Amino acid sequence: MRHLYLEDLKEGQTFQSRPYTITAEEIKSFAQRYDPQPFHIDEKAAEGTLFNGLVASGWHTASVTMRLMVESIPFAGGLIGVGTENLSWLIPVRPGDTLTVVTEVLSVRASQSKPDRGLLRARHTTLNQHQQIVQEFVSTVVVQRRPA
Amino acid sequence: MRHLYLEDLKEGQTFQSRPYTITAEEIKSFAQRYDPQPFHIDEKAAEGTLFNGLVASGWHTASVTMRLMVESIPFAGGLIGVGTENLSWLIPVRPGDTLTVVTEVLSVRASQSKPDRGLLRARHTTLNQHQQIVQEFVSTVVVQRRPA
Repeated sequence: MRHLYLEDLKEGQTFQSRPYTITAEEIKSFAQRYDPQPFHIDEKAAEGTLFNGLVASGWHTASVTMRLMVESIPFAGGLIGVGTENLSWLIPVRPGDTLTVVTEVLSVRASQSKPDRGLLRARHTTLNQHQQIVQEFVSTVVVQRRPA
Repeated sequence: MRHLYLEDLKEGQTFQSRPYTITAEEIKSFAQRYDPQPFHIDEKAAEGTLFNGLVASGWHTASVTMRLMVESIPFAGGLIGVGTENLSWLIPVRPGDTLTVVTEVLSVRASQSKPDRGLLRARHTTLNQHQQIVQEFVSTVVVQRRPA
């Protein structure tokens, strides 16, 4: 299942996730714990804000994206992120939206100091059901080399 | 309570959060939903991994950080992020760790096109109980101007 090593990966390779529909309940539940602002936790209060209605926390969108990445990117050692560049929230995610994530490999390189691993940079694009980009970021992840 | 407008903010200003202790239960509960990998969801399975034990998902650390930011940064319009630069996970967060977040304003500028708001860049540093930096990122957020 998780069968890909550094040697199996190259620039331009892509991975596509399943669709994931986000509900008002999930938006509010996540935000009550991690981002308790009116536009994330209460439909009525959200109407009077910049967003004109309930929207998902950006960190919630990022977390759903991670879930879809874990399911769709079968690296042998799992997905271990060192960090991200340029995480952007471009369009609000609203209740009922269906998200998918497309991952594109940007570069692959072996570690100089650790012979059992390498680093991969990839762009992760999260789309809604209208194929609009709602979020985009570039990550650097640790990938295992194939054992000798 | 949420009383600060763009005019009240300047480079070098800082905001300090309360401490937040993260439990094994919370780490596993978040990860089961959003980052279901062995090193985030099961103590036993985590022992055989790169981390040698259970660690929080980076997105969980980011979400806890957002919670602490919402509580400690009293902007009039709330905290509305456009995106982040250079989100880095530097040290694993483990069960029982106590996190705090320090925010430092890097720059403030009025919007050219929208007279009611501006953009603020800030660095958000998440520390553990040993004052080690576990996560760091720079965000750009929308801030309201004081009404005339």
